[in-house]
Amino acid sequence: MDIIMPKNFVFLLIFNLTLTENVFSGNVLIWPTDGSHWLNIKIILEELTQRNHNVTILASSATLFINSDPDSPVNFEVIPVSFKKSDIDSLIEHMIMLWIDHRPTPLTLWTFYKELGKLLDTFFQINKQICDGVLSNPKLMSRLQKGGFDVLVADPVTICGDLVAVKLGIPFMYTLRFSPASTVERHCGKIPAPASYVPAALSELTDQMTFGERVKNTISYPLQDYIFQSYWGEWNLYYSKVLGRPTTLCETMGKAEIWLMRTYWDFEFPRPYLPNFEFVGGLHCKPAKPLPKEMEEFVQSSGEHGVVVFSLGSMVKNLTEEKANLIASALAQIPQKVLWRYKGKKPTTLGANTQLYDWIPQNDLLGHPKAKAFITHGGTNGIYEAIYHGVPMVGVPMFADQPDNIAHMKAKGAAVEVNINTMTSADLLNALKTVINEPSYKENAMRLSRIHHDQPVKPLDRAVFWIEFVMRHKGAKHLRPAAHNLTWFQYHSLDVIGFLLACVATAIFLVTKCCLFSCRKFGKTGKKKKRE
Amino acid sequence: MDIIMPKNFVFLLIFNLTLTENVFSGNVLIWPTDGSHWLNIKIILEELTQRNHNVTILASSATLFINSDPDSPVNFEVIPVSFKKSDIDSLIEHMIMLWIDHRPTPLTLWTFYKELGKLLDTFFQINKQICDGVLSNPKLMSRLQKGGFDVLVADPVTICGDLVAVKLGIPFMYTLRFSPASTVERHCGKIPAPASYVPAALSELTDQMTFGERVKNTISYPLQDYIFQSYWGEWNLYYSKVLGRPTTLCETMGKAEIWLMRTYWDFEFPRPYLPNFEFVGGLHCKPAKPLPKEMEEFVQSSGEHGVVVFSLGSMVKNLTEEKANLIASALAQIPQKVLWRYKGKKPTTLGANTQLYDWIPQNDLLGHPKAKAFITHGGTNGIYEAIYHGVPMVGVPMFADQPDNIAHMKAKGAAVEVNINTMTSADLLNALKTVINEPSYKENAMRLSRIHHDQPVKPLDRAVFWIEFVMRHKGAKHLRPAAHNLTWFQYHSLDVIGFLLACVATAIFLVTKCCLFSCRKFGKTGKKKKRE
Repeated sequence: MDIIMPKNFVFLLIFNLTLTENVFSGNVLIWPTDGSHWLNIKIILEELTQRNHNVTILASSATLFINSDPDSPVNFEVIPVSFKKSDIDSLIEHMIMLWIDHRPTPLTLWTFYKELGKLLDTFFQINKQICDGVLSNPKLMSRLQKGGFDVLVADPVTICGDLVAVKLGIPFMYTLRFSPASTVERHCGKIPAPASYVPAALSELTDQMTFGERVKNTISYPLQDYIFQSYWGEWNLYYSKVLGRPTTLCETMGKAEIWLMRTYWDFEFPRPYLPNFEFVGGLHCKPAKPLPKEMEEFVQSSGEHGVVVFSLGSMVKNLTEEKANLIASALAQIPQKVLWRYKGKKPTTLGANTQLYDWIPQNDLLGHPKAKAFITHGGTNGIYEAIYHGVPMVGVPMFADQPDNIAHMKAKGAAVEVNINTMTSADLLNALKTVINEPSYKENAMRLSRIHHDQPVKPLDRAVFWIEFVMRHKGAKHLRPAAHNLTWFQYHSLDVIGFLLACVATAIFLVTKCCLFSCRKFGKTGKKKKRE
Repeated sequence: MDIIMPKNFVFLLIFNLTLTENVFSGNVLIWPTDGSHWLNIKIILEELTQRNHNVTILASSATLFINSDPDSPVNFEVIPVSFKKSDIDSLIEHMIMLWIDHRPTPLTLWTFYKELGKLLDTFFQINKQICDGVLSNPKLMSRLQKGGFDVLVADPVTICGDLVAVKLGIPFMYTLRFSPASTVERHCGKIPAPASYVPAALSELTDQMTFGERVKNTISYPLQDYIFQSYWGEWNLYYSKVLGRPTTLCETMGKAEIWLMRTYWDFEFPRPYLPNFEFVGGLHCKPAKPLPKEMEEFVQSSGEHGVVVFSLGSMVKNLTEEKANLIASALAQIPQKVLWRYKGKKPTTLGANTQLYDWIPQNDLLGHPKAKAFITHGGTNGIYEAIYHGVPMVGVPMFADQPDNIAHMKAKGAAVEVNINTMTSADLLNALKTVINEPSYKENAMRLSRIHHDQPVKPLDRAVFWIEFVMRHKGAKHLRPAAHNLTWFQYHSLDVIGFLLACVATAIFLVTKCCLFSCRKFGKTGKKKKRE
């Protein structure tokens, strides 16, 4: 058998020989989330505009990344808010500092949760301002009503997109990476998650768990559910007020027509899901473009050793001087050339093999034939670019889903992790040597890449297909599980189990009574007979 | 917004503009099941041969439908067996008679199960002969070994395909409509099925159940599991003997790389599933071809009333004379022309509007613009053709999954059911009038048709894609849930729950002990103090 695997496998074309143009143009309303989330949804809306849809972005007046390209046909509806960009910036800074824990004395778990609580409260206040900015803004709402939108695509990390859609009377769908312990997907989306092999998101566990890990995982689910339920409790009141009837955030979220999950089975462990969940991870990935001339020359100068690409993402700007020196001295000891995205003061230990950049064309570098390894904070976008191009990783996770993401890549044999808080120069050096010199890491990264490329339909095309489907059919009701119509005790069949147990108990009771009665009666008769 | 829904929606072509040829040719071994199952897998292998794969069918010397087209490039490996075609024929006849229950006195449930048990035993003996015919046949096994097969595609209704693949050391996958109460999919494939909204296959329930129905459904699962476990117990011994180690049928079945399920969400109720399940229902459906001249003239003669297509499938040849007369007299009363596939004696009550045929081009008739309704026994293949062309149905289910299939179509508002045992002429007439004259039936059938046609990739293309995927990658391990590595009590976290309960019990015990100890101690001290 002669198997050649084409890089861009275009399976369908053999079957469908009629080339069709996009035959309809719809109106799409986007409810984005700022930060790295925006980079992902931006790709979807670019594709939508290319396919002749009218796209309108509904975003606050204080956004960091969400902006309008002057050449783009995308419309903006600005939500007036009183907070500033600097408030968001400081919120993010605060969050990162809390997670990375740069302070001299590490936080206790109690202080950590107290601080996290404060941050979440600030986040709630900011998010509530965004909601009010639309829902209590009759002029804006009236403009949106007149917009004739066919669908709202929301990133549910910023709450209220669903509520706006419900008020506008249009179907909505989500684009989502995850919620802690999949609380939203499980409770509002009704996706099952057996604790025995589906690791709770953020738990850093894999699908192969020891008994102890399964105990941790089993506890993890209700614990994170509890935190979620208590934090989002305020939203239940808000949603009830806006809709004028008692309801919950979860009930409204459960009305999503489709959940576009930003992972796939190259990244995620196989788990149960429902027909209205579509896994479109890596939809932003593209083939590499040529590098700028100077950068290409630097990359080529690496010879057979190749290059290491290093970025801690768009959210982290600087490290402490000490940490930067420690990293730089490790990088100086490898034969590869290093391209490091770093905006801080130049470390004194920086080697001649390392170049600092304010910004790097990360995807083009990872797709370069000379890319040997990727040092990453473990954001989903970056990991997917590494998977797409088959580059092994050294993970330096810091906050949010990053440690969990790196745990996935470690389990799949494509990454080594170093702890940013405790690492020494030698740790980073050894990690780099391992992923570059041990062939299994490259092989596993290539295996994930092959899995990613070999899908019947590309992730971006699937995402756009389902957005268009919802527009064409005014929803996707045929994919909606009937679980949404059940209460939690009906869903878990607790009423049925209770009834069946009651039946069994009654039967046992009756049989026992009959036996006792018979024993007494025949016992007495026996005794009587004996006496006689 | 201007929405036009193209009939053959070719979404991908807009994105993937490079037309590629199929770049590899693989060797596919097919393990089919006879009867209507063959009609379905035949379509897959025709597509595989068109895509330059070498296809070999492994079938017994006594098959009913499985045959070699002289023009087809498909190879046949014949399994020598001692039973005859007539044995299969009589087995099927016996089974149908048992279900339809033509006898003057209806069977009791006990007799039914006893008779069914006998039939299943005969089926086991026949199937075992097929297994032995391959596995205890060194010459055939050696030829298969030399065949260099890349994948085995099995219909698991005929047991042993998986075992042959394991012995040959090649990956295998299934093409399957269902197993009773999804026992195989649940226990061997690890697909979850919450009893609260996933109706057990064959239960004739839908996803919207009353309390009583949920009780029935909850009992249905373990009951059918029990029947399955006890019936297939013999296979566990057989599999253990062949593999030379203690194993079960289910363990081997669980090694399937992909499960190609012959349904989709136009037909099935949305339910949880796993990434290695692909729903390819209706893969055999095709646009209608022109009818033979004489038939076309008859169809055209129906005028604006249109025609009714009537077939009880390939397995049922005749009805009793009484039943045929009853049916014919109902058909004679409608203004439509009727094309009835019927091999029996011409009923005396046959109307001028009804034509009998030994065979009809069912798909071409259902795809004809004049098709108004379809009277069907409710086989999956026929129902899918009706869905594909958007034709409402009158269901006359008889055996196997037919009553369940019709229950699905009824729930989706595209069919009316009549009971073949108890129906009168008026029942059939009313059912026909309802689906033809009440617009909702046509609308619902059209809605299902739109859902069926509007998929990112056609079912047949998806089926072939995953067969080729398994060949390219020698499996699809990235889609395999880790649930397969767990015992049943680990899967349900019973050990973890037990451990946590023990912890709680210990904690309660210790706290109570401490309290009692304190009470006694301080109680005594208090009393002492009081006394002092």
